[in-house]
Amino acid sequence: MKNEVVHAIQDDYPDDFAWCFGCGRLNEEGYHFRTGWLGEETVTYYEPSTKHIAIPGFVYGGLIASLVDCHGTGSCALALLRKNGFEPGSGEVPPRFVTASLNVNYLKPTPQGKLLKAVGKVEEIHPKKWKVTVEVFADKTLCATGEVVGVVMPSTFAQNE
Amino acid sequence: MKNEVVHAIQDDYPDDFAWCFGCGRLNEEGYHFRTGWLGEETVTYYEPSTKHIAIPGFVYGGLIASLVDCHGTGSCALALLRKNGFEPGSGEVPPRFVTASLNVNYLKPTPQGKLLKAVGKVEEIHPKKWKVTVEVFADKTLCATGEVVGVVMPSTFAQNE
Repeated sequence: MKNEVVHAIQDDYPDDFAWCFGCGRLNEEGYHFRTGWLGEETVTYYEPSTKHIAIPGFVYGGLIASLVDCHGTGSCALALLRKNGFEPGSGEVPPRFVTASLNVNYLKPTPQGKLLKAVGKVEEIHPKKWKVTVEVFADKTLCATGEVVGVVMPSTFAQNE
Repeated sequence: MKNEVVHAIQDDYPDDFAWCFGCGRLNEEGYHFRTGWLGEETVTYYEPSTKHIAIPGFVYGGLIASLVDCHGTGSCALALLRKNGFEPGSGEVPPRFVTASLNVNYLKPTPQGKLLKAVGKVEEIHPKKWKVTVEVFADKTLCATGEVVGVVMPSTFAQNE
């Protein structure tokens, strides 16, 4: 199987919600994380650049946290969209989640120059609150685990300062 | 009091450990987080750029996670350096920490265009393992809280794949 997401949830976000530095297709300077289904799990692939290091040769933990974060909210959106009877690429506008909490455990130094693969398992806690457990691999090596709790973006988000 | 760190721990990291995308002074494309003492607490100031957004007008959670991460490891280094009798700027080479775990709770959307201030309280769990509780403010508004557990970078770090 190719290490590629064909139909990513982020491809279907409305333009107004496609500017995220992590996963927004319209943010020219961002990471462009793309998250899709891999059977019953979710997956995001990413190869960090040479600048995304902690020390030379090893990936920056903040990049891994960003990957877990966007993989998490994307996975929540995939799962709720599927619950509603749709798949990415179907033309249905997906829900947009925001992160309530993010946890990352760094198990091993993550080598730079390898393709990273974040794999997620999604669980519904509440119709508007979902939890994703995440494993991040560099090639076959499990380097980090994480958990994201995502909530459906409230319509008042931008007024909630 | 000016919102500026005069003597940051990152200024004193040896060149080999000054390439972090988050806080390395030698990484030209990184964030350049700088962390210092503010009395008994630690502080990092940062103003995200217009590209570091989640949706227009609001800061990207992955940027906040990165800020908490580097503020955490920097705070650990400050605290161990002080325990050893030194302050940043003294010429003593500080210890370098890596992140074992990172937790972030997003309490409110973080408005873009404000100066962010991460404030940390550091606690020794073990001589080589320290915990930092972090609060992230946008101006006076508490937008996120977090916790970082840092461990002294093992000399085998780069061999531990």
